Amino acid sequence: MSDNTTLTIPALIERVDAIFRKAGLNEIQAGALARVIAAGERDACKSHGIYRIEGALRTVKAGKVKPDAVPELLLQEGSAIVKVNAKGGFANPAFELALPVLVERARSCGLAALVINDCTHFSALWSEAEALAEHGLAGLVMCPSYATVAPTGGNKPLLGTNPFAFAWPRAGRPPYVFDFATSVAARGEIELHRRAGKSLPEGWAIDAEGNPTTDPEAALAGAMLPFGGHKGSAIGTMIELLAGIMIGDLTSPEVLDYLGTTTLAPVHGELIIAFSPEAFAAGRPGNPFARAETLFEAIVGQGARLPSQRRYAARAKSEADGVMLTDAEIKQLERLFALGLEAVV
Amino acid sequence: MSDNTTLTIPALIERVDAIFRKAGLNEIQAGALARVIAAGERDACKSHGIYRIEGALRTVKAGKVKPDAVPELLLQEGSAIVKVNAKGGFANPAFELALPVLVERARSCGLAALVINDCTHFSALWSEAEALAEHGLAGLVMCPSYATVAPTGGNKPLLGTNPFAFAWPRAGRPPYVFDFATSVAARGEIELHRRAGKSLPEGWAIDAEGNPTTDPEAALAGAMLPFGGHKGSAIGTMIELLAGIMIGDLTSPEVLDYLGTTTLAPVHGELIIAFSPEAFAAGRPGNPFARAETLFEAIVGQGARLPSQRRYAARAKSEADGVMLTDAEIKQLERLFALGLEAVV
Repeated sequence: MSDNTTLTIPALIERVDAIFRKAGLNEIQAGALARVIAAGERDACKSHGIYRIEGALRTVKAGKVKPDAVPELLLQEGSAIVKVNAKGGFANPAFELALPVLVERARSCGLAALVINDCTHFSALWSEAEALAEHGLAGLVMCPSYATVAPTGGNKPLLGTNPFAFAWPRAGRPPYVFDFATSVAARGEIELHRRAGKSLPEGWAIDAEGNPTTDPEAALAGAMLPFGGHKGSAIGTMIELLAGIMIGDLTSPEVLDYLGTTTLAPVHGELIIAFSPEAFAAGRPGNPFARAETLFEAIVGQGARLPSQRRYAARAKSEADGVMLTDAEIKQLERLFALGLEAVV
Repeated sequence: MSDNTTLTIPALIERVDAIFRKAGLNEIQAGALARVIAAGERDACKSHGIYRIEGALRTVKAGKVKPDAVPELLLQEGSAIVKVNAKGGFANPAFELALPVLVERARSCGLAALVINDCTHFSALWSEAEALAEHGLAGLVMCPSYATVAPTGGNKPLLGTNPFAFAWPRAGRPPYVFDFATSVAARGEIELHRRAGKSLPEGWAIDAEGNPTTDPEAALAGAMLPFGGHKGSAIGTMIELLAGIMIGDLTSPEVLDYLGTTTLAPVHGELIIAFSPEAFAAGRPGNPFARAETLFEAIVGQGARLPSQRRYAARAKSEADGVMLTDAEIKQLERLFALGLEAVV
């Protein structure tokens, strides 16, 4: 007698897809969401796994994302910018539509940018960074969020937790990938401390008066802090400029104004920059992929970890043995399937 | 009777240029170096001012930089990558040569990259980031350094202090610019603590055994730490990959192997990415430059500073009143002019 159920990855994708289809999402929206959520579970990245289904449905129910959106590619001859309009749907199907064109442009131009506009965003950026690396490209991915972070020296939420992700391809193994919030901690971690009645580590947050606090309630009413002091604050600001303002989409304070809450998935744009290491290294000594392995060996050789190592270990296990869900999780999937949008408030 | 001498900025450029010309540098090398060193003094950024002349001359004398190099542009039709080979000279004249082409490509392609190869590097990146912004472009600039920083979780120098700079253009005023080392502190700051017999703040460095240390001697024998823990370590690694390996140039450990010292200016490449906000924002609501001003006002409005504010205040003063040098500094300029390469060991 077991309290757990093991699903193959395709079976998990199918179940999540069925939930979204039944809730009224069209095939491309449901499929893209199901794949990225299943990838979160596969990598033991629970905070981006099936836990996210409810938030996505809540955002649909609130009318803040279009469940039947069909993204549209906007191409311009001779440009290294590929634009895709998500048409008010989720970012994921827009990314899937534009990826082949981005790859082709990055190869022919050496580097290229993908702009996703008018999208709702709820997934981690690593899956997009990895998708570039699968095509032999290096990639940088960034987007705003809701205004919850004070710039260093300030005292009010203005910046988002603005994630920043990067990938470098590796032959025959998962890519070098990092993906982190430019705040010290994710908002969810502060919420978890609050629920557990625990104090926050110092340096995570300030209260509504701008004073340092370790009280989760005071932090949620105040602001989070950027990672790495003024340097992280500058990177968070850069993300507002490049992946909000430059691409003609919402900044983190504008997202919060538009939604009026941080409980719905945020509406904004996204910027993805793809580099062809082959084009950059052409005519120069050394193979860039082999040289990168030398660097990675030197990092691991002195006892440091490569980012994503834990995720990839979980992935290998999931691919061999399937993804294990608790009975409570299975019941939740059944409930979401049965009730659809009625399951969320 | 004054201990100081005030020079206009053009007069300072002329004096520094004369030192380099007399030491055997050709016109383009000497001119580019003089302009960037004078810009450091103008902005009260003494660590990148006339203090740097000696290091540049020492690198010439050691035969590690070619004083008569003539950089060469390598252009490929249809590519968004502009390559310039510094031919063993300093990075600065190579950048000056390639800038107009980079600007043109960024405007026509929406974004473009400039790769500088085979250069010796000794100046701050902000001057290059600013130069992009003067043409209405946003820019990212990065390069490796010497291996002096341990990756987070490691215990040996591997990464460089790898600077990362960004600029966003502002109408009628100096651009939004940040430029920082991806280590907690610059190596020079540790050296200053050592000379002053002061302990280092915690978190700056580890000793040769990999243990945290606040002793500057132990830190210099050990390794510096990245800013912001594993996040800064990841960014430093990304810079090795993109601005070292991808562009077919040296990584920070390779630079140190090649030079065998951190007392000479490092030899490596540099990566500059230029974005046209007009091309990115085309067809979208709102003017990106006006929207950026709203963001900057919100930052300053809550008491936070914009990066480079101090530098710009010093610049305004220097442009109005000239650059003030101490008698010791003037004597040093006279000595360097009189002795040339004989002035350095």
